[in-house]
Amino acid sequence: MAKKDATSGSGNANPMWGGHYAAGPSVIMAEINASIDVDKRLYAHDIRASKAHAEMLGRQGVLSGKDVKAITRGLDAIQKEIEDGTFVFSSALEDVHMNIEASLKEKIGDAAGRLHTARSRNDQVATDFRLWLRDALDGLDESIKDVQAALLDKADEHASLTMPGFTHLQPAQPITFGHHLMAYVEMIGRDRARMRDCRARVNEMPLGAAALAGTSFPIDRASVAKELGFEKPMENSLDAVSSRDFALEFLAAATVLGVHLSRLAEEIVIWASPSFGFIKLSEAFTSGSSIMPQKRNPDAAELVRAKTGRLLGAFSALTVIMKGLPLAYAKDLQEDKEQVFDAADTLRLSLAAAAGMVRDMQPQEDALKKALGVGFITATDLADWLVREANVPFRDAHRITGRIVRLAETKGCRLDQLSLEEMRSVEKSITEAVFGILDPVQATASRKSAGGTAPSNVKHAVKKARKRFLSA
Amino acid sequence: MAKKDATSGSGNANPMWGGHYAAGPSVIMAEINASIDVDKRLYAHDIRASKAHAEMLGRQGVLSGKDVKAITRGLDAIQKEIEDGTFVFSSALEDVHMNIEASLKEKIGDAAGRLHTARSRNDQVATDFRLWLRDALDGLDESIKDVQAALLDKADEHASLTMPGFTHLQPAQPITFGHHLMAYVEMIGRDRARMRDCRARVNEMPLGAAALAGTSFPIDRASVAKELGFEKPMENSLDAVSSRDFALEFLAAATVLGVHLSRLAEEIVIWASPSFGFIKLSEAFTSGSSIMPQKRNPDAAELVRAKTGRLLGAFSALTVIMKGLPLAYAKDLQEDKEQVFDAADTLRLSLAAAAGMVRDMQPQEDALKKALGVGFITATDLADWLVREANVPFRDAHRITGRIVRLAETKGCRLDQLSLEEMRSVEKSITEAVFGILDPVQATASRKSAGGTAPSNVKHAVKKARKRFLSA
Amino acid sequence: MAKKDATSGSGNANPMWGGHYAAGPSVIMAEINASIDVDKRLYAHDIRASKAHAEMLGRQGVLSGKDVKAITRGLDAIQKEIEDGTFVFSSALEDVHMNIEASLKEKIGDAAGRLHTARSRNDQVATDFRLWLRDALDGLDESIKDVQAALLDKADEHASLTMPGFTHLQPAQPITFGHHLMAYVEMIGRDRARMRDCRARVNEMPLGAAALAGTSFPIDRASVAKELGFEKPMENSLDAVSSRDFALEFLAAATVLGVHLSRLAEEIVIWASPSFGFIKLSEAFTSGSSIMPQKRNPDAAELVRAKTGRLLGAFSALTVIMKGLPLAYAKDLQEDKEQVFDAADTLRLSLAAAAGMVRDMQPQEDALKKALGVGFITATDLADWLVREANVPFRDAHRITGRIVRLAETKGCRLDQLSLEEMRSVEKSITEAVFGILDPVQATASRKSAGGTAPSNVKHAVKKARKRFLSA
Amino acid sequence: MAKKDATSGSGNANPMWGGHYAAGPSVIMAEINASIDVDKRLYAHDIRASKAHAEMLGRQGVLSGKDVKAITRGLDAIQKEIEDGTFVFSSALEDVHMNIEASLKEKIGDAAGRLHTARSRNDQVATDFRLWLRDALDGLDESIKDVQAALLDKADEHASLTMPGFTHLQPAQPITFGHHLMAYVEMIGRDRARMRDCRARVNEMPLGAAALAGTSFPIDRASVAKELGFEKPMENSLDAVSSRDFALEFLAAATVLGVHLSRLAEEIVIWASPSFGFIKLSEAFTSGSSIMPQKRNPDAAELVRAKTGRLLGAFSALTVIMKGLPLAYAKDLQEDKEQVFDAADTLRLSLAAAAGMVRDMQPQEDALKKALGVGFITATDLADWLVREANVPFRDAHRITGRIVRLAETKGCRLDQLSLEEMRSVEKSITEAVFGILDPVQATASRKSAGGTAPSNVKHAVKKARKRFLSA
Repeated sequence: MAKKDATSGSGNANPMWGGHYAAGPSVIMAEINASIDVDKRLYAHDIRASKAHAEMLGRQGVLSGKDVKAITRGLDAIQKEIEDGTFVFSSALEDVHMNIEASLKEKIGDAAGRLHTARSRNDQVATDFRLWLRDALDGLDESIKDVQAALLDKADEHASLTMPGFTHLQPAQPITFGHHLMAYVEMIGRDRARMRDCRARVNEMPLGAAALAGTSFPIDRASVAKELGFEKPMENSLDAVSSRDFALEFLAAATVLGVHLSRLAEEIVIWASPSFGFIKLSEAFTSGSSIMPQKRNPDAAELVRAKTGRLLGAFSALTVIMKGLPLAYAKDLQEDKEQVFDAADTLRLSLAAAAGMVRDMQPQEDALKKALGVGFITATDLADWLVREANVPFRDAHRITGRIVRLAETKGCRLDQLSLEEMRSVEKSITEAVFGILDPVQATASRKSAGGTAPSNVKHAVKKARKRFLSA
Repeated sequence: MAKKDATSGSGNANPMWGGHYAAGPSVIMAEINASIDVDKRLYAHDIRASKAHAEMLGRQGVLSGKDVKAITRGLDAIQKEIEDGTFVFSSALEDVHMNIEASLKEKIGDAAGRLHTARSRNDQVATDFRLWLRDALDGLDESIKDVQAALLDKADEHASLTMPGFTHLQPAQPITFGHHLMAYVEMIGRDRARMRDCRARVNEMPLGAAALAGTSFPIDRASVAKELGFEKPMENSLDAVSSRDFALEFLAAATVLGVHLSRLAEEIVIWASPSFGFIKLSEAFTSGSSIMPQKRNPDAAELVRAKTGRLLGAFSALTVIMKGLPLAYAKDLQEDKEQVFDAADTLRLSLAAAAGMVRDMQPQEDALKKALGVGFITATDLADWLVREANVPFRDAHRITGRIVRLAETKGCRLDQLSLEEMRSVEKSITEAVFGILDPVQATASRKSAGGTAPSNVKHAVKKARKRFLSA
Repeated sequence: MAKKDATSGSGNANPMWGGHYAAGPSVIMAEINASIDVDKRLYAHDIRASKAHAEMLGRQGVLSGKDVKAITRGLDAIQKEIEDGTFVFSSALEDVHMNIEASLKEKIGDAAGRLHTARSRNDQVATDFRLWLRDALDGLDESIKDVQAALLDKADEHASLTMPGFTHLQPAQPITFGHHLMAYVEMIGRDRARMRDCRARVNEMPLGAAALAGTSFPIDRASVAKELGFEKPMENSLDAVSSRDFALEFLAAATVLGVHLSRLAEEIVIWASPSFGFIKLSEAFTSGSSIMPQKRNPDAAELVRAKTGRLLGAFSALTVIMKGLPLAYAKDLQEDKEQVFDAADTLRLSLAAAAGMVRDMQPQEDALKKALGVGFITATDLADWLVREANVPFRDAHRITGRIVRLAETKGCRLDQLSLEEMRSVEKSITEAVFGILDPVQATASRKSAGGTAPSNVKHAVKKARKRFLSA
Repeated sequence: MAKKDATSGSGNANPMWGGHYAAGPSVIMAEINASIDVDKRLYAHDIRASKAHAEMLGRQGVLSGKDVKAITRGLDAIQKEIEDGTFVFSSALEDVHMNIEASLKEKIGDAAGRLHTARSRNDQVATDFRLWLRDALDGLDESIKDVQAALLDKADEHASLTMPGFTHLQPAQPITFGHHLMAYVEMIGRDRARMRDCRARVNEMPLGAAALAGTSFPIDRASVAKELGFEKPMENSLDAVSSRDFALEFLAAATVLGVHLSRLAEEIVIWASPSFGFIKLSEAFTSGSSIMPQKRNPDAAELVRAKTGRLLGAFSALTVIMKGLPLAYAKDLQEDKEQVFDAADTLRLSLAAAAGMVRDMQPQEDALKKALGVGFITATDLADWLVREANVPFRDAHRITGRIVRLAETKGCRLDQLSLEEMRSVEKSITEAVFGILDPVQATASRKSAGGTAPSNVKHAVKKARKRFLSA
C-alpha cells in the first residue's frame, strides 16, 4: 500500500505532453526517464539545428517569415541564457529539447509549436547528437595530433640515443629512444585515421526523417544538410532514427586509441621504476609523498592506463543496449549519449596527460647505457655478421652465436669484452671486424633497412611524419 | 610553447603533501587526478572508520584520550556540515579523505595529523569503499525483495490464468500467468543469493594494512573490525590494499541481475505490443503522445532493458583496469568507485521501476485466451495422452499427433474442434476422454509434476516462496 | 612430488631451438604454448610471404639463385601436401611457421635455414596474419553484398506493401515493407564501408621489421610489399611487430555488423511469431517438431541474433589482451588469431543465414493489413493534415487529434470509420478531404520527403542502392 | 540463382524430426545449427542423466522393467563405444542428445523412443550442462588448490627473504617474498570460494521441467535429483529451461580468477626482466633462442596474462546472448556451452602453468638486496619511529623524514649510511636506536600488526592458510 503510493503518480507530469495524459509519471519514472542532466550538453547543437530547420520551413513556405524570425530570435536568446548560466533546466521537462521548446513557447508563444512541424524528437535528437560528436571528433583530432607533436619532438631530440629494445620484457636488440617513440606516432596516427573515417559516417543528417517515416510536408533536406555542414541527408528515414552505429564506431575507435595510450602509459610506469630508471618524470604528472620526497609516483600514467577500461566499458554497454532492438525508435536509445560523452571526455583528458608526460619525460642516458650491457644484446648482430660477412649458413650462425654467448656468460663479460681469440676458438672465420658490430651504438646504426632503427632512419622518419601528420 | 605552458605546474599544489613537493600538479593533472566529485559519497563511511580507528588508537595508548575526543568531536562536526550542505569540498584537496582531514586540522589542530598514525590512504580508502558497498548491498537486497513481493502478489492473483507458453517466441504449451511470473521470482532469488555471497567477501576489513605492509604500531585490528561490523580483518596486508575482486564480484552479480531484468523488460515490451496485447501497462511507467493518447509507450521497460548495458560496461571496465596490475596499490585503482557507484544506482532505479511495472501491469484475459487458440498449443498434451492413456509408443504418439495437427490445420480449426471421428480416422485408440486434455485450461491443470505449471502448483509455490524470500 | 614431475621437463623440446636449450618445455607448457591447431589456417599466406621474401633476397644478392629456386620448389611442394591432406602437422613444432620450416629443411636441406635471413617469426606472423585477414575481408565484402542483394530484391518486390511502422514496438505510422528492409541495406552498407576502411589499414606490410629493429641486410621491402599486394611497408619496425590495432578494428567492425544482424534477426523472430504473423519463414531456416508440424521455430534467426555475443566477446578479449602491453613482441599476441578467425567464421555463417532468410521470407499481407487497423496509426497524418490543410497551429493540431482518437477509441472504431460529423464535432475546419489521409496506404504514399516511406521513394531508393552497392 | 540453390534444401534432414518436416535444412542451416562438435563433450553426463531418468520412469511404472534394462544396457554400450573411439558422431543428427538417441534406437528399437517420455531436449540439455559444469568446478577447485599449495610452499621457504614492496611500481616499504606470495593465496582463496558458491547454484536439477511447463506423467523428480547428486529439483519449470545465470556466474568467477592470475603473471614478467632480476624462471615455462641461449622469455607467464582476455570475452559473449531473451527456451541458448567449455579449459591450463611457474621460480637474493638499497625504502619506518619513540607529532614526523631523505639523496647514500650527527642536524630527538629501524630486514621484522609483513607473521599465516585451504 504505502509502497504502491510511493511509486504512483505524483502530478509532476510533463506539461508538454498535452491534456490527455492524465496521471503524471511517478517519482521513479521521472528519475529513470529524465535525461536532462546528461543531454543538456547538446543545447548548442539543438539550437543550431532548430534554426536551420525553421529557416528551411520558411523558405519552403511552411512557416511564415515572421514565425521564422521569432523562432530564431527566441533560440538565440535561450542560447545566451544558457551560456550566461541564467537558464534554469527543469527535470520535469525531461530533456534538453523539451526544455528549450518550453522556454521558446514562453518567449514567443504559438510560433514555438510550429517549429516542430515536419520533425519529431526522434530525428531531432539523432541530428543534435551527430553534430555534437562531429565537434568532439574535431577536437580529438587536435588532441591526438598534439600527442604526435610531443612524440615527434622527443623522438627528434633523441633520434640516436641507444637503449635496449625488448621482446617479452627481455632485452633483445639495441634500438634508439627516438625509434621507440616513433612507433607510437604511427599507432596513434592510425587512430586519427579511424576517427576521421568515423567522422565521415557521423556526418550524415537524420533530420527530416520525422518520427520514422518521413513527412508529407514539402521539406528540403538537402539545404538543411548543407547549412549544418552535413555531407548529405540520410537515405532512409527508419535508418536515420534507429541507428547508432556511428556512436558504436566512435566508441570502438576510442577503445583502440585507449589501448595504445595504455601501452605508452605502461612503458612510462615501467621505465620510471627505479629498477629500470630509463626516464625521469616531471613533478607535474606525478604525485609525491612528504616522507619520501624523492619519490615520483607516475599517477597520471597509471590513470591513463586505467581509463582504457571505461572506454571498453562504454563500447560494451552500447553494444548490449543496441543488440536485438527492433526498428525504429525505442527508449533504449536514450542510453547512448552518456557513454559517448564519457568516452570523449576521457580521451580528451588522457590525450592531454599523455602529451604532457611525453613532453616532460627525460630519458636517463646512464641507466639506458647500463641496461645495454645486460643480456648480450648484440647477439643477433653477431649472427647476422657471420651470415653476411663470414658466409656462415644461417642456422649455423645461430648455433655459433649461441656458443659465443655462453662463453661470455661463463666469463661474466659482455660480448665485446671477449677477445678475438676467444671468439675464434668457437668459429675460425671471425675477424677483428666483428667488434664493429658488437657495440650497441654501431649495431643500431647498421639497421638501415626501411623502417629500421638506425638514427639516420629515425631522423628521416621524423621529418616525413611531421609532414604526414602535422602539416594538415 | 604556449601549449607547454598550459600543461606545466600551476601552483595549486595539494597543501597536504608537505613542503618538499615544489611544483604543483598542472591543470590537466588536477583534472585527471582529482576524485572528489566521485568519492565524496564515501564521506559518512570515511568518518565512521576514522572514528573507530582513533578510538582503537586511544585504547592501545597510541593516542591520548584528549586527542581521541577532539578527533571524534571534529569528525562529527564535519559530518554535520556535510549533511547540512555547508561543507565546501575542494578539488585541490583531491579526494574525500584529504578534504575531511584538512577540515579536521582547521578544527582541532595537530591532533588531526595523529589520526593518520598506523594507517594510510591505501587501507583507508579500501575500508571506506567496502563499508559503502556493504550498505549498498543491504539496500539492494531490499529492492530485489520488493520486486519478488510484487511478482508474488501478481502470481498469486493470476495463479490459474491460462496463457500460451512460448519457445522460440512460438506458442508451445499452455501455462499460467502466475507460473510465468514465478520463474522470475526464482531467477532474481538467485541474484539475491549472489549478492549475499558477495557481501560476505566485501565484509572483511583492510584497515590496519597501512600503505601495504602493516605497521609497527601496536594496533588492535580485531576490535576495529568488530566496531565497524566487519566479519574479520583481512589476513594479508598487500592483499588488503591491492585487491578489488569484491568490487568485480559485485559488478558481475549486478550484470547477471541486469540480464534477468532485461528479460522481464523485454517480455513487458512484447506483451504490451498491441499484436500481443497480453498486458496493459499503467500510465505511471509509460509515456504517451498528445496525438495518440491511447498509446502507452513502455519507456520504463525499455530503459530497464537498456541499462543492462551499463552494468556489463562497468564489469568490463573494472576487469580491464585490474588486468595485469602488479601489487600493491596503484593509482589505477582510483577508477573503481565510479563504476560501482553507477552500477548500484542503476540497479536501485531499475529494480524500483521493475517492481512498479509488475504491480501495475494488468493481464488481458481476452487477448490471452485468443492467443491460446493459435498454434495447436495442446498438441504435446495429446501426444502425452496417447502414451499415457492409450499405450501408444512414444515416437509413434508424436507421429500420430503430427497427423492430427495437420488435419486441424487443413480444416482451419483448433484441436478441440475436431470431431472424435476425425481423430479416430488417424488413430483408432483415441476415445472421448481425449477432449479433457485438449482444452488449454485442463491441459495446464494436468501438469502437476513438481515445478510444473498446474494452478495448484503455482498456489503452493507462491506460499513456499513467500516463506523462502520474504520472511527473512 | 608426482605433481611436480608432471609439470617438469619432458624432453619433447622443439628441435628448431638449437642445442643450447637443454630441457624441453613440459607437457603443460607444450599445451599452453602450441598454437598450431589455430594458426595452421595461415599456411597458404605463410608460404606466399616466404616465397616473396626469398625471391627478394635473391634479387638483392643475399641468397643465391639456386637457393631461391630450392626454397620456392620446396614451399610449393609443402603447400600441395597440406592441400592434399598428406602433410602431418606436429604440435612439438609449436606453430605453422616452424612446421613449414622443418619440413622445408627435410626437403631441401641447409637452404631452408637461409630463408630466415633478415626476418624473424615476429614480422613473419604479423605479415601472414594480415594477408589472411585481407582475404577474409574480401570474402566478407561479398557476403555483406549478398545480404544487400537479398534485401534489395525483397524491398523492390514489396515496395508498396503497407505495414505498421513501430516505435517502442507500438504501431506508430504506416510504412512499407520495402522501406523497412531498405533501412538494413543502409545499415550494413555502412558496415561494408567500415570493413573497407579496415582493409586499408590491414594492408600494410610488417615484413622486414625482423625481430623488432629492422635489419642490416640490404633488403628491398617495397618490392616485397608490391609482390604481396600490400599498399606499402610499415614505417616503423617496432610498430610493425607490436601492433594489433588492425585486428581490433576488424573485431569492432564485426561487432557493429553483428549488432545490425541481431536487430534484423530479432525482427524476424517477432514477425514470425503467430501473434504478429507478419512473415512466413521457409523450412530451410527453421526447425520443426514432429508433434507440431505446423510450427516453424526461427532457429537460424535466433542463432544469428545470439552470435553477436561472440563478436563482442572477441573484441573484449583482444582489448584485454592488448591493454598495457609494452613494446615490442610479447607472447600475449599469440592469442590474437583465434579471436579473429572465430569472428570471421561467425560473420560468414551469419551473413549467409541472413541472406537466405531474407530471400525466403514471405510477408503475409492479411496479417499486415489487420495490424494496420490497430493503434490509430494515421493519427500523425491527421495532425499534419490539420496543420497543412486546415491551418491549425501545430500544438493545437496535436490536441485536436488526441481528442478525435479518444473518440474513435470510445466508439471502438478506426479513425477512417468515424463520420465527418463526429470529427467536426471536435474541430470545425475538418472537411471531407481528410479521409484521403486517414487510409494507411494513402498516408504512406504522402510521405514523399527525401528518405520517406512513399512507395515511389522506395522504388527510387532501390534503384539508387543497386548502383551504390551492387555494381562495384 | 546459383547462390539461391546453394542455400536451399538439401535433403540431409534430421531423421529424428519425423515425417512431417519435408524439406531438410540447407547446408548453411546445417552448419549454423549443428552443435555436435561442441556438445559431444556432454556425452557422459547425458548418458548418466538418461539412465537416472529411465530408472525413475521404471520405478513410477511409466516404463516397464524390461524397457529400463534395455535402455540402461544400450546407453552403457554407447558410452563404451564413445570412450573406445568407435562411436561415429553424425553432424546431420545435430547434437549429442540426438546422436545418442539415434544410436540407442538402432541398438534397442522402440524402447529408445520411450526414454524421452516426460522430458524434452530443453530440460535434458540444461541438466547435462549443469552436471558437466559441476564436474569442471570440482576439477578447478583442485587446480586452484594446487596453485595455493605451490604458493604456500614457496612462501614458507622464503618467509623472511626481504624485498622491496611497491606502490605505483616504485619501492615503498620492505616486505618479505613470502608475504607477497601469501597475498595471492588469499586472492585465489576467494576465487575458490566464489566457485564453491557458484557450484551450489549450478547443482539444482532442471530435469522434469520437460519442454517448459512440467508434465502430466507421474514423475518423481526428487529421486532423480538424489541419484544425480543434485541438491534439489528446480522449483519452476520455465526457470529450469530458460535460465543460464549459473553459466554466467561461472564465467564471471572465471574472469575474476583470470584477473588475479594476470596480476601474478605480470609480476613474474617484470621480476624476470633483467632490470629487476628478482626471480629466475625455469626452462620449463620459458622459451629460449638459439642465438641468445641465456635468454628465458617468460612465455607461459605472458600466455597466462593474456588468457584473461578470453575469460572476459566469454562472460561478455554470454551476457549479450542472454540480454533481453523472452522465456522459455530459445535457440540462442545453444551458444552457451562453447563459452563455458573454453573458459574451463583456459582456467585449467592457466592454473597448471601458474602452479608450475611458482614452484620453479627462484628468487634472486642479490638482486632483491640491491633493490632494497634504492628509494630510501625505510623512510616510513623512520617517520613511524619518530612518532612512536621520539614523540614527534605525526605530520611533523613526515616533514622531518622528508628532510632527512633529501639529505641522503644529496649525499647519494642510503638512509642507514647517514651518520647520527647528520640526522640530528635535522631533528634533535633522534638517537642511536634509530639505526635499528633503518635496516630493511629489521624494519620488516617490526611490522608485526595482524596481517603485516613480519617474517613471524608470514610463518604463522602459512600455517593457518594450509589449514584453511589445503586440509579440506
